[in-house]
Amino acid sequence: METIQYNLPQTRIPQAWYNIAADLPKPMAPPLHPGTLQPIGPDDLAPLFPMALILQEISQEREIEIPGPVRQVYAQWRPAPLFRARRLEQALDTPARIYYKYEGVSPAGSHKPNTAVPQAYYNKMAGTKRLSTETGAGQWGSSLAMACAFFGLECKVFMVRVSYDQKPYRRAMMETFGASVTASPSIETESGRAILSQHPDSNGSLGIAISEAVEVAAKDPDTKYALGSVLNHVLLHQTVIGLETIEQMALADDEPDVILGCTGGGSNFAGLVMPYLGRNLKGLSHARVIAVEPSACPSLTKGRFTYDFGDTGHLTPLVKMHTLGSTFMPPGIHAGGLRYHGMAPLVSHVMDLGLIEATSVQQLDAFAAGIQFARAEGIIPAPESNHAIAGAIREALVAKQEGKQKTILFGLSGHGHFDMQSYIAYQAGQLENYDYPEEEVAMALAGLPSLG
Amino acid sequence: METIQYNLPQTRIPQAWYNIAADLPKPMAPPLHPGTLQPIGPDDLAPLFPMALILQEISQEREIEIPGPVRQVYAQWRPAPLFRARRLEQALDTPARIYYKYEGVSPAGSHKPNTAVPQAYYNKMAGTKRLSTETGAGQWGSSLAMACAFFGLECKVFMVRVSYDQKPYRRAMMETFGASVTASPSIETESGRAILSQHPDSNGSLGIAISEAVEVAAKDPDTKYALGSVLNHVLLHQTVIGLETIEQMALADDEPDVILGCTGGGSNFAGLVMPYLGRNLKGLSHARVIAVEPSACPSLTKGRFTYDFGDTGHLTPLVKMHTLGSTFMPPGIHAGGLRYHGMAPLVSHVMDLGLIEATSVQQLDAFAAGIQFARAEGIIPAPESNHAIAGAIREALVAKQEGKQKTILFGLSGHGHFDMQSYIAYQAGQLENYDYPEEEVAMALAGLPSLG
Repeated sequence: METIQYNLPQTRIPQAWYNIAADLPKPMAPPLHPGTLQPIGPDDLAPLFPMALILQEISQEREIEIPGPVRQVYAQWRPAPLFRARRLEQALDTPARIYYKYEGVSPAGSHKPNTAVPQAYYNKMAGTKRLSTETGAGQWGSSLAMACAFFGLECKVFMVRVSYDQKPYRRAMMETFGASVTASPSIETESGRAILSQHPDSNGSLGIAISEAVEVAAKDPDTKYALGSVLNHVLLHQTVIGLETIEQMALADDEPDVILGCTGGGSNFAGLVMPYLGRNLKGLSHARVIAVEPSACPSLTKGRFTYDFGDTGHLTPLVKMHTLGSTFMPPGIHAGGLRYHGMAPLVSHVMDLGLIEATSVQQLDAFAAGIQFARAEGIIPAPESNHAIAGAIREALVAKQEGKQKTILFGLSGHGHFDMQSYIAYQAGQLENYDYPEEEVAMALAGLPSLG
Repeated sequence: METIQYNLPQTRIPQAWYNIAADLPKPMAPPLHPGTLQPIGPDDLAPLFPMALILQEISQEREIEIPGPVRQVYAQWRPAPLFRARRLEQALDTPARIYYKYEGVSPAGSHKPNTAVPQAYYNKMAGTKRLSTETGAGQWGSSLAMACAFFGLECKVFMVRVSYDQKPYRRAMMETFGASVTASPSIETESGRAILSQHPDSNGSLGIAISEAVEVAAKDPDTKYALGSVLNHVLLHQTVIGLETIEQMALADDEPDVILGCTGGGSNFAGLVMPYLGRNLKGLSHARVIAVEPSACPSLTKGRFTYDFGDTGHLTPLVKMHTLGSTFMPPGIHAGGLRYHGMAPLVSHVMDLGLIEATSVQQLDAFAAGIQFARAEGIIPAPESNHAIAGAIREALVAKQEGKQKTILFGLSGHGHFDMQSYIAYQAGQLENYDYPEEEVAMALAGLPSLG
């Protein structure tokens, strides 16, 4: 029997997260205070986050120990499986070997619990009573709702209005875990009311929902804020993905020539690739690393690497990242988790250092790849993950054309069980491609402060 | 770190299914031809099934080898994990140890692929071009659609009208796998037209959909029929569940005192418990085995053990089983997979032999148990599986009351990602309990032939 699943025992759940900051040839640019435009310190973030997470955000330590209670929760689905996609290889008739690390095995269905669990844990330890957050596609909101249920925290989720209306089942999942879910923009916050007064029918956006969730946390001492991507500590928590994968590829007696992940905020991609980039930097491996983003929202391939706000309401610090402009509203593609104007500063930084590449995929190509994958491998992927699959298939077909052996590894960040409406729309021919709107992006970028 | 997941390597996927027929103290009553009312032979079934499956249906061999290509597909998610529900134990404050075998890790999200894959395989080997089947909740239809995609077969699914309308996402899943899905009753078959002429607005039922799928297969030599539960060979394929669990419980150094599963057609229950019943019969174990069924459709606890048809249209053979009458239409509970008038003849037989017990659970208690489970364990269960959870919680609370250690094992047959509408309805207070309608059942039973 051919091996198709490479599993590690529970004892091989990583003991520590990997912090690539310790190995980077050049440090990241610091975040700036939104008022003073000066670098911020830990105390500036204290209203929003517990100190343990703030210290992780700025840590230069290579390894940061994973607390026992977090590993205990991880043990329910970690180590996550690494699959060899043998049936997909056959369907493509490619000489390439294709592997995927599957994070959809988590109870919430994606990689998001990898950081939701430690965030809930550290908050619980710090005495936080309630967490507020935003969610777009719903993967993050349901993961945090689950983690809060495990640790006995209340959970308040601002869900982007268009998702709130289109994805009642995601909302039901969060409510089943006991969370309170509000459509954003809402009348509960100043940020929300400001948007609604100008755009009463606003569909919302991740940027707006972030503003609302941050505002709630900033105003209530019992409430902290939790973010599902972008920040260093979030990406740090996701490195369990890559750390496990390195061991699993060794079990497979193979080494990836190319590694791909989809990028929205950047956390699932970073989780898989940062441990590999660390090896690349040490000369232990030479894998090409490719971020795959939607053509409709191409921050890495078309954005500017500059300081920008993380949210639309400009309540967050400014961070240096590839951005399409914080006031830019991405087209309504169905990969809601990739509709973000910016990019994790750490991912942008390694892009700027030339350690990774980026490419983009059109919506229709992403769904076509996802359906081909589903018929071969049985898993219906999240629309976000379809971008990584499309990138991997592209590489596999190049290998076929060149008649070359090649080992392709990609991250399958989650399943699409709560995204079936997008599959219905695609199969009914109702979806279209979007090029990114150059003029709108130019306008959004023109409004940014000039900070390099 | 406490172990909560007991995993076996891919090499420990069972080599053979376990056929309890070889160990039963008394043989099962034979199925009867619907026309002659005489016992049927293999040839009578040949229009519907490939001979390999017919021979499994009547086999008395204890072990039936699992073909290599089937094990190869199983390897994507098998051995399925056995979990210790430590957080649920804490939430219940019970001295009982609770384990659950989780089949929701299959790509289709339930135990159904365990038999869909071998059924597709044997049909492919026999030259079948197309499989026809029925589906209620959709777990079976999506599993067969996936298996057909893997083996290059066409797949035609008759989906109970009420599910077809209420569960567009289940349908989308089947269509993503390439299946053709028709609402039942349909105008495509005589059985369907007969129902529609009398009840143009019929919601359909599993019994009707079976009639339609059987009719299509009987009339087309390139099409065979596939059933997702009830039949011996289906239950046989599911025994991988229990065979793995026995090994995993040994890893946990524990032995179940009580084993529970939900029962609709009986296949997920049988898959878990038949290998344990085999051990009980040999005196190797002494576990109580309990079938948990919905109070609204209580075939084992309230039905009659007699010969009845498997379908509403009376096209199938008659089998001896616990039945509420093949013309009985179960109330509209949300656990669609448990809305079946009959029971697997093998499950009925071991019930009649006193090898198992049965109990029933009301709809509201099942959902309350499912939500308590979700908040503790993170997994949102299928409404069907909630019945097993409710039964297990009941046992755990008895243990608490009695202050006794006890080891409880239950089957978690699938996740509820495609059943969130039922969770919304429950949490909105829109669901109700149903006692089984005694008069309707009495009428349905009165219409049966008297065959013992």
